This record gives sequence, C-alpha cells and structure tokens, in this order.
Amino acid sequence: MKFGVLGTGVVGQTIASKLVHLGQDVMMGSRDAGNPKAVEWANNEGSPRALYGTFANAAAHGEIIFNCTLGAASLEALQQAGADNLKGKILIDTANPIDYSTNEWLLTVCNTDSLGEQIQRAFPEARVVKSLNTVNCNIMVEPNKLSERTDVFVSGNDADAKKAVTKILHDFGWISVIDLGDIITSRSVEMYIVLWRNFRHVVNSYRFNIKLVSH
Amino acid sequence: MKFGVLGTGVVGQTIASKLVHLGQDVMMGSRDAGNPKAVEWANNEGSPRALYGTFANAAAHGEIIFNCTLGAASLEALQQAGADNLKGKILIDTANPIDYSTNEWLLTVCNTDSLGEQIQRAFPEARVVKSLNTVNCNIMVEPNKLSERTDVFVSGNDADAKKAVTKILHDFGWISVIDLGDIITSRSVEMYIVLWRNFRHVVNSYRFNIKLVSH
Repeated sequence: MKFGVLGTGVVGQTIASKLVHLGQDVMMGSRDAGNPKAVEWANNEGSPRALYGTFANAAAHGEIIFNCTLGAASLEALQQAGADNLKGKILIDTANPIDYSTNEWLLTVCNTDSLGEQIQRAFPEARVVKSLNTVNCNIMVEPNKLSERTDVFVSGNDADAKKAVTKILHDFGWISVIDLGDIITSRSVEMYIVLWRNFRHVVNSYRFNIKLVSH
Repeated sequence: MKFGVLGTGVVGQTIASKLVHLGQDVMMGSRDAGNPKAVEWANNEGSPRALYGTFANAAAHGEIIFNCTLGAASLEALQQAGADNLKGKILIDTANPIDYSTNEWLLTVCNTDSLGEQIQRAFPEARVVKSLNTVNCNIMVEPNKLSERTDVFVSGNDADAKKAVTKILHDFGWISVIDLGDIITSRSVEMYIVLWRNFRHVVNSYRFNIKLVSH
C-alpha cells in the first residue's frame, strides 16, 4: 500500500522507516521537495519504496497519510498538502498541540476543542483518526520494547477508517488498540500529554506507556 | 489521628468510612451542621470516632483535611472551613474542576492553571497535596479490587506533606504512589480526567485505573 508521511522529524522518520520495513511504499513530505532530512532518510533506507517530495507530493502519493508534523504547524502543513490530495483518505494525526516556547508545555488548544477536531473540521472530506500521540516514537513502532502489554488509542468519526488504522497498529506490534469514540475524544488524548510529560520526568526515559487495568 | 473530611457525597463518605475503619477519628464537614447525609453517615458508622459538623468544625477537628467537595464548590467550601483552621495542616485535594452542566465534562480550569494550584494560592499556609482525583472512590480506598498493581499520584510543594499522604495511601492499600512534583503538576492529573471519562465509557464500569509501564 502507498503511504504519505508528512514531517521529517524523528516521528516522521521513525514511522516512515517502519512502513518501508513492513514492505509499504512511502513518500516523506516536507515544505521543500529537497529537504535535507528527507533526502538523508531516503538515502539511508536505500529502497525504491522510500521516496520524498513536497507535502502535496506525499499526500497525493499516499492512500493513507500520517501527519507527523509538529502540532503548531500541522494545519498549515496540511493546507500545503492540499484538501484534494486528502479527500476520502485516511489521515492519521499523531501530533500534539504543544507550545514549546515555554518550559510549561502549554497546549495551544484543549478542553473545548482539540487539534484532531480542528483538522477534521478543516478537511471535512478526510477521514481523520487521532492515534499514537500518547507515546514516544520509539514506542509507537515497537510497543513490545515494554515488558508487558500497554494500550494505544484511536479517535475518529469514521468506523472503517479506525478499523484500517487498528490493522496498521497491529502491524506495528500493538496488541491492544482502544477505540475511544468520535474525533471529539482527541481532546482526552491530547490533554493526557501533560501527564505524559510528568511521567517522562518521573521515569527519566521516553520508554514508557500506560496500561488500562479494568478487572 | 484526627481527620476532617469536607463533603458528604460518595467520595467524602467513602474516604471518611475508610478512615474510621482504619481507627482514625473523623469529622465529616458540610455547609450545614445537621446535613442529613452526614447525620446518616455517622449513624451508619455507629462509632464514637465518626463525627459530623460544619466545614469549619471539621477543619478545626482534623490534623489532616480531605477536600472531597465538588471541584466547582471547593474554593467556597474551603473559605467556609476557614484559613485559620487549615493553617499548617495537610490538605488533600481529591476534587476535579468539572463543569457537570454540559454533557462534555468541560474543565472549569486547565492548561495554564489548576484547582490544586488555586487552592494552594488561596490558602498559602495550608500544605496542599493533590491526590486520588484520578480514580473512582471505590478504587481510592480499595485499589486491590483490581487484579494488578496500578498507580496513584501525589502533587504538592511540601515534601513532608507528600510523604505523610503517601503513608495514608499505603494504609488505603496503594502499593505504588508516584510523586509527580510540585503542585503545578495538579494540571496533569486534572486534565487526565477527560481521558478517565472516555475509559469509563469504554470499560462500562468505574472499576479501572492506569498502570505506568516503564520497563
């Protein structure tokens, strides 16, 4: 299957590489077609299935799109990707709306709205699924680095899109994928990131996740 | 030891009963000295260690105070309890700042502030420790209802107060108590409550909690 991965940071690179290793065709998208990080990524992969281009190129290439841009830049990056290139496609939003300009990690949107909802509203014909934003990218694609089952979540209005994303998450190694509900539930996983940040300080590592215990 | 428990709802009753059963002297406080729920609670306990009175009576009685009022009413209840009655005492804040007037469970404060911080600012001589707000009251006092270890958190500026609260939590049955940091970390556990609410829908029960997995 063809994937577009928007964003050349560590999240985009980690997910794009995982997809290539799973045998998928992946185009990494960025603002500039010749973004050095994207070029280096493709060279390192050394595979005809590892491509790069603009946000629009990557969105046009992919049947399924991962948004791996920073939350504060996501809406603009998706505008560059183009509504026509996202139309009818599954758009997996992994971003968190964090304002990194302060030490506080304030959210730029929360409580009454979320980035996931903003993206779904801005691109009503895309099938937005919020997922993976609750874990560090190393855990995203290698959840079995942890010694026991932990949970990952999907939020979105399109049940079939959530099923397709759940299948991808299983391919990534996730055993437990919890469907939280419609895209409004993006609020909960985005607001959780403040607790995630405290956990990171407590465990002094990025390698952790939560497990829902209900029995 | 003497405890004051502010609030006559299910959280206040559950915690007050647990403390009585642990052999503590407990006064349940409410707006009116003869609050029928407080009277009934004391009658049901049938113990000379189960008392009731006003918020001020309960705060004066307790060496340690639990705030178990609704988040939206907490600051006013604590004003009625009186700054002098809280001075130098450990004040365990279990409340969540939820606006129940909509189906959305919007928070009345979040991101840039929290109820825990508001209480600490309003009562600078109290030693505020945020805790237990991340679980249903049945789990609060019986964490071993769940089949495996889960986590509870403390947030506060006073290390000795957090140690004392951790000891109480161990008496309640908690094995793992995670110190998240200063009272500013109240934000994270209060913002988590939106995810808690989604979990409640997913598991269709109040009997659940999260476990931090970090190895």
